[in-house]
Amino acid sequence: MNYCKGTVITGKNTMAISDRCPVPEEPCPTGAFIRPLIWSPCTSDAHLCATGCESLPYLLGKAVGHEMCGEITKVGSEVQDFKVGDRVIVCSVMPVWRSMEAQDGHAKQHQDNMYAGVDFPDRGGSFVEEYYIRDADMNLALIPEGVSLEQAVMVPDMMCTAFEGVRQLAPEFGSSIAVLGIGPVGLMAVRAAVLHGAGSVFAIGSRQKCFEVASEYGATHLVDYHNENYREQILKDNGGPVDGVILCGGSEKELSKGLSILKKGGTLVNMSAYFSGAPIEIDPAVWGFGYGDKIIKGVGCAGERLWMSRMAKLVACGRVAPEKLITHRYHGMDKIPEAMDLFLNHDRSLIKPVIYND
Amino acid sequence: MNYCKGTVITGKNTMAISDRCPVPEEPCPTGAFIRPLIWSPCTSDAHLCATGCESLPYLLGKAVGHEMCGEITKVGSEVQDFKVGDRVIVCSVMPVWRSMEAQDGHAKQHQDNMYAGVDFPDRGGSFVEEYYIRDADMNLALIPEGVSLEQAVMVPDMMCTAFEGVRQLAPEFGSSIAVLGIGPVGLMAVRAAVLHGAGSVFAIGSRQKCFEVASEYGATHLVDYHNENYREQILKDNGGPVDGVILCGGSEKELSKGLSILKKGGTLVNMSAYFSGAPIEIDPAVWGFGYGDKIIKGVGCAGERLWMSRMAKLVACGRVAPEKLITHRYHGMDKIPEAMDLFLNHDRSLIKPVIYND
Amino acid sequence: MNYCKGTVITGKNTMAISDRCPVPEEPCPTGAFIRPLIWSPCTSDAHLCATGCESLPYLLGKAVGHEMCGEITKVGSEVQDFKVGDRVIVCSVMPVWRSMEAQDGHAKQHQDNMYAGVDFPDRGGSFVEEYYIRDADMNLALIPEGVSLEQAVMVPDMMCTAFEGVRQLAPEFGSSIAVLGIGPVGLMAVRAAVLHGAGSVFAIGSRQKCFEVASEYGATHLVDYHNENYREQILKDNGGPVDGVILCGGSEKELSKGLSILKKGGTLVNMSAYFSGAPIEIDPAVWGFGYGDKIIKGVGCAGERLWMSRMAKLVACGRVAPEKLITHRYHGMDKIPEAMDLFLNHDRSLIKPVIYND
Amino acid sequence: MNYCKGTVITGKNTMAISDRCPVPEEPCPTGAFIRPLIWSPCTSDAHLCATGCESLPYLLGKAVGHEMCGEITKVGSEVQDFKVGDRVIVCSVMPVWRSMEAQDGHAKQHQDNMYAGVDFPDRGGSFVEEYYIRDADMNLALIPEGVSLEQAVMVPDMMCTAFEGVRQLAPEFGSSIAVLGIGPVGLMAVRAAVLHGAGSVFAIGSRQKCFEVASEYGATHLVDYHNENYREQILKDNGGPVDGVILCGGSEKELSKGLSILKKGGTLVNMSAYFSGAPIEIDPAVWGFGYGDKIIKGVGCAGERLWMSRMAKLVACGRVAPEKLITHRYHGMDKIPEAMDLFLNHDRSLIKPVIYND
Repeated sequence: MNYCKGTVITGKNTMAISDRCPVPEEPCPTGAFIRPLIWSPCTSDAHLCATGCESLPYLLGKAVGHEMCGEITKVGSEVQDFKVGDRVIVCSVMPVWRSMEAQDGHAKQHQDNMYAGVDFPDRGGSFVEEYYIRDADMNLALIPEGVSLEQAVMVPDMMCTAFEGVRQLAPEFGSSIAVLGIGPVGLMAVRAAVLHGAGSVFAIGSRQKCFEVASEYGATHLVDYHNENYREQILKDNGGPVDGVILCGGSEKELSKGLSILKKGGTLVNMSAYFSGAPIEIDPAVWGFGYGDKIIKGVGCAGERLWMSRMAKLVACGRVAPEKLITHRYHGMDKIPEAMDLFLNHDRSLIKPVIYND
Repeated sequence: MNYCKGTVITGKNTMAISDRCPVPEEPCPTGAFIRPLIWSPCTSDAHLCATGCESLPYLLGKAVGHEMCGEITKVGSEVQDFKVGDRVIVCSVMPVWRSMEAQDGHAKQHQDNMYAGVDFPDRGGSFVEEYYIRDADMNLALIPEGVSLEQAVMVPDMMCTAFEGVRQLAPEFGSSIAVLGIGPVGLMAVRAAVLHGAGSVFAIGSRQKCFEVASEYGATHLVDYHNENYREQILKDNGGPVDGVILCGGSEKELSKGLSILKKGGTLVNMSAYFSGAPIEIDPAVWGFGYGDKIIKGVGCAGERLWMSRMAKLVACGRVAPEKLITHRYHGMDKIPEAMDLFLNHDRSLIKPVIYND
Repeated sequence: MNYCKGTVITGKNTMAISDRCPVPEEPCPTGAFIRPLIWSPCTSDAHLCATGCESLPYLLGKAVGHEMCGEITKVGSEVQDFKVGDRVIVCSVMPVWRSMEAQDGHAKQHQDNMYAGVDFPDRGGSFVEEYYIRDADMNLALIPEGVSLEQAVMVPDMMCTAFEGVRQLAPEFGSSIAVLGIGPVGLMAVRAAVLHGAGSVFAIGSRQKCFEVASEYGATHLVDYHNENYREQILKDNGGPVDGVILCGGSEKELSKGLSILKKGGTLVNMSAYFSGAPIEIDPAVWGFGYGDKIIKGVGCAGERLWMSRMAKLVACGRVAPEKLITHRYHGMDKIPEAMDLFLNHDRSLIKPVIYND
Repeated sequence: MNYCKGTVITGKNTMAISDRCPVPEEPCPTGAFIRPLIWSPCTSDAHLCATGCESLPYLLGKAVGHEMCGEITKVGSEVQDFKVGDRVIVCSVMPVWRSMEAQDGHAKQHQDNMYAGVDFPDRGGSFVEEYYIRDADMNLALIPEGVSLEQAVMVPDMMCTAFEGVRQLAPEFGSSIAVLGIGPVGLMAVRAAVLHGAGSVFAIGSRQKCFEVASEYGATHLVDYHNENYREQILKDNGGPVDGVILCGGSEKELSKGLSILKKGGTLVNMSAYFSGAPIEIDPAVWGFGYGDKIIKGVGCAGERLWMSRMAKLVACGRVAPEKLITHRYHGMDKIPEAMDLFLNHDRSLIKPVIYND
């Protein structure tokens, strides 16, 4: 086992730069090493930090992070489609393709964990100097010509999650969609909804910066949820309940609110994670008493090379400008804790930070 | 306005035979009158009776009932495909086909109410001597040759609901399905799951009579939910969580239980109605913390002539034997209250009663 | 029966303005009369003219045309959602919603014919001064605020057809789509593919004017089919066969060509009409010898109020600029034959003409 | 390289038992060796023999065959779920799960060839004494308790193909299905259609033995295609065109015939292979002139461990009795040529032969 430099959580709200982040001596035959060129911290990294890795205790002292692009420095003997020097997007969820779940159409339900490789449990996350991945051909994607590092690093989670949610929602052409919560995933969901043919798109949030990006992404209605009648306003402006709802953030009570503005026969896609332990409570009346044909989907990030490649293709074709999400830029791993503090301090100017490894 | 004899709810747990059930003087041009030949009360009728029509106050004193087959006695001038004397299955939910909901693929979300016609709000239910329906061509279906009245009267709700739920579940060939609650709809869902290619079918209930029918319908595992480890038993017998769950009955806490035996990526179809006012509580952990790709569908009864015709065709072809559900038989409208008492008294030998109008 | 002025086909390649186009005296209770404000001729109108209505002999001497927007001048007693003076888009295909086909999810397979109403067979098309439609609530759509007449008249066929084809194709986000034939429907299909998340879009045609619009609509590759290696070029530029093919025009031999650039597991949507009587010939090798999982769909125009409303909503939200298709503008019904001549003369500057009724 | 005994094609209509069928010295880490217990020849094996391997020249002199069950004799170091002595069903098509096609939902479009392993091109088919497979965990399935060898050997092609076709057809409950061609795959498609909820099932063939099995599998109408009005008869008996068509055999002209009995909006699934080189000709009129919303799918056999396991589960649960297809039984590899002759001689008593390796 070798060790490299990385950014680790050391306790509640404390981080450090460590030089003891484990790396295997060699990649496995299908594996590769990647030297990061750019990182982006995520709300979930911040959540781990704020709780001192409460939900993933074994991660304490290991590297965090799962949004990264970099350059391949070594490939295993069986890697076919990538070579040293390739600049790649690294998958955050890493589905395992030789699995029964893959045969069942749900490869992403059998993953190499973001923070612990199946074959190398000590791995940790990708905020390191040298990152190991087990299946290069399946879980890397080339950064296409014309796509910047800033754009590319929005692919593995922001785009891969939001576009997966909208794929599962499958809006009809011209239908009305409400996006409840417009942090970075919600904003990307606005764009994805537009690119899946939505007509009216209600972006529901509270921060001016987010409303600006929502508009640029094609939202037709900007709704402040601090206005206590915001749901009535949506119903009025839309001429009735919306065709689809995307839930991106908020407490266990938001799901029922989302259902209350959804038409009978419509679908709500949840992209929030619920870790507080509190139950999700649904008011039966807003769910049609159980027989209103309202569908609720709890959707996780999709990954894999093909999906990432398709996301990158959308950027290359000019359909999506993911760099609009980036509000803060840093240089050098030592700045990662500072970037993380933006989340921990609830900085209202923050959408996404990136850190260049230079 | 004319009046006919019918069975009405007069207060909490009280019923009476009334001769003041309203009927229009003539059917509208697309409408028809039907003389019932057989009725079947439903749990929801019993619920209305037990609560004195609490959820539908205007129904107090009007006729109840929505499962009925009969003979056409009069048709409107524009009815094309039915004539006086035809023996027909009468739709319980009566979708309106000239509606935006129909154009949106959800005709059943715009209905003539079971108990109040859009054009004749005084109508009430079908436990009457003469029943009015507004759109004969769209919401009646001929009883095919070889299909008995007892079989036919299981179509409008028992089959139309259970098969709709399984259609929405769309089991894969050879997949494993758990049916949680095996009253009449749950039992029919067992049969529907088998007829949609399910392999293992877990029938979860408590009554011997229901287990017998479940077996005859193709259930492979009979599970007593009074056994406190019944979920562990299912996981063990199935070699892991099931591919799909159908929920047919139980309290607001059952949905979360259903999710706890469902694979990630699987679908739970709810066919229970929730009227108590209590919230449905979902434990986030059994829902993959919100991103486990578990889908929850709250499915209502489908109706309309085509769906009923297809259900009747399944009976005519020998694919389903719905008469197995019938445990009690009566003759004459005056016996309806007695049949209803089976529900109100929680008679453990009851699956479904029928009353012949002779 | 009344009569009004209209544009009729009088023989092979001959048209005339007639004042004997039949109109009922009153609309039926669900019907309406519409005074056209703008018309647009279609290739199929031109085909009828060129052949002297060979395929629809009863139309000879009756009005042609099916793309029109206008103002309501009279409504039947049961019309609920429209009133005199409303400016509306008129459906070209007019699905019948009280039908078994509608219950089967295929309302458009049971239509009032474009040129002959079910209840008024003498009707003819909509290039008349007063147009009768049988079901206003189901088959008209309001022109939303901010949508021009020129935009609106592209809805009933150009958008309703092309977007339906792409809906049936259901491109994945970032997938590659080839549109074979970029007349007005093909161009609109380019836009629809972009709005359903396509990445690379190959627009295959021959005319400069069409290539320009294709680019503006988001095509990433412009391919001249007069280049005899155009298919090899597509395979090369795309790095292999495309994910989906849309066929909009060409002879019976084009379908096999389309399949030859389609991946195994992909879908080809055909939107061409085949009237020559010649068989469509498929080379088994390009269809994977029958087991390559290539799907072929022969898709017809969708209509109905909801679909038209959703198309109009896309225009109102700025997602589609259908007026880009319009290359020629005229005023007065008398100019319709001149506009038709553009088609008959294969004018290479033509995409779509419109005629204002002023 | 080692060699074992196998059944090889030596020229047009000639076969031999060879002892020079190549086997690798060791399985690869994910691979296994299997000793066959039972084989079943397929029409496609017979086609290869009749043409002297014209379509696959490299197979001349190598073993044929792809329907086999056997016992594992050796496993590679990374095989997790199988061990020496396990009795298994061997996949015929062997999808490759670490592939872009798998990520695209079409794993079966990237296969180890039936007759030539990706990593061992000399392999040939499975009519050998020792068979090598590259990915045991992905492409073998345990034979469940209670399932006989005769039943199991019907899984890899007969069931896996027919059920895949019906899965792609996705019949609605109670819908009408026509199966055109009732050899063994067609018969299994009859059963699959019944198990996907079909109502009327038209089995179209000519041989008495096949009609008998069709009846036992649930066909409701037996139709002799030698009756020249058989299509009119189907339309009459069904009260109109059928909801779905499955095509299992016949010349390039059958597809158009199949479309001629299919409703607008319906789907035809083709499971025939077309090797003659002649074009498939479609009469535009029966395809709705290209816009009748009739879908044509050319479906190939699905394989993989999960699908085979689900097929075997259907047998274990008593839903399918695949042994009904078996009309001829032999013992010993030396009898394989005799079994093949049944096909070559067009024996009218033949549905499927099996040969025990004892």
